[in-house]
Amino acid sequence: MPDKLRAAIRDVPNFPKEGIIFKDITPVLGDPELLQLSIDQMAATADGLEIDKVVGIDARGFIFAPPIALKYKAGFVPVRKKGKLPWNTKSIRYSLEYGENEIEIHEDAVKPGDKVLLIDDLLATGGTAAAAVKLLKQLGAEVVCVTFLIELDFLNGREAIDCENIHSILHYS
Amino acid sequence: MPDKLRAAIRDVPNFPKEGIIFKDITPVLGDPELLQLSIDQMAATADGLEIDKVVGIDARGFIFAPPIALKYKAGFVPVRKKGKLPWNTKSIRYSLEYGENEIEIHEDAVKPGDKVLLIDDLLATGGTAAAAVKLLKQLGAEVVCVTFLIELDFLNGREAIDCENIHSILHYS
Repeated sequence: MPDKLRAAIRDVPNFPKEGIIFKDITPVLGDPELLQLSIDQMAATADGLEIDKVVGIDARGFIFAPPIALKYKAGFVPVRKKGKLPWNTKSIRYSLEYGENEIEIHEDAVKPGDKVLLIDDLLATGGTAAAAVKLLKQLGAEVVCVTFLIELDFLNGREAIDCENIHSILHYS
Repeated sequence: MPDKLRAAIRDVPNFPKEGIIFKDITPVLGDPELLQLSIDQMAATADGLEIDKVVGIDARGFIFAPPIALKYKAGFVPVRKKGKLPWNTKSIRYSLEYGENEIEIHEDAVKPGDKVLLIDDLLATGGTAAAAVKLLKQLGAEVVCVTFLIELDFLNGREAIDCENIHSILHYS
């Protein structure tokens, strides 16, 4: 089944910068069958786990996390770029290849002991997901699973993420 | 039923700037029952219509549009801020209260004749939604319904949007 997803993903050379081949998922999203399939496959990675909150990372994580939350009868929580969340936030800075980035979560978005499934579309170097896991743990949540649609295996991003249970539907080597 | 949603929305004064009371929807999103309810109510506004694509506006529209797309067995299409979509785009500039903004859509995101449901979380002055409707029409799509979770009635935003069929679940006067 992942073969149908893989066939639909569009390689866009030199985006967002020279030398990078961007994995464009919009042909998957725009096809009703592949949209359903991608969500079903991502949701299935947490089969049998109790999930209180499904956390999505700004912005493409927002596409997959809410339908997965509905499946688990869990809440949806956004992790956003600095300055986008209106209420009291906890934030974390982390290093990128060039420079720094900062993400935030509402202080009341998860409760101590909440079991969290973290979702994003793509695992590259893992910096953002690793920072999101740290933020969630600082709020007392337990990150029971981290799931991506796509993983760029050659960047070894999963090694940066403090979670035993990391899944991706499509791997690129 | 909208009363339960209304009760959960949090007023945040002076965000994103002095004098604005921001409607924070994260308590709705974080509650499994209210997340389901908000999506069901938004989806129901297009009951009986044939929908080919559900379009969500960056970034909070991405939260609601994909689950609604799944209900209609439609595709999901993102309209994004300038520079975020990797492939060939069609873009439109529009005026804000102060300055200008620009949004984009992939050229192949909708086909001529596609019936579109446009989704965003909030209708304020309507500038972004009006621009999105124009973009979709330029690509030949038919915008059959535009739906928001929240509408700030006193801003008359719906008058800016070129669609006969505009719905909001919660109205603030």
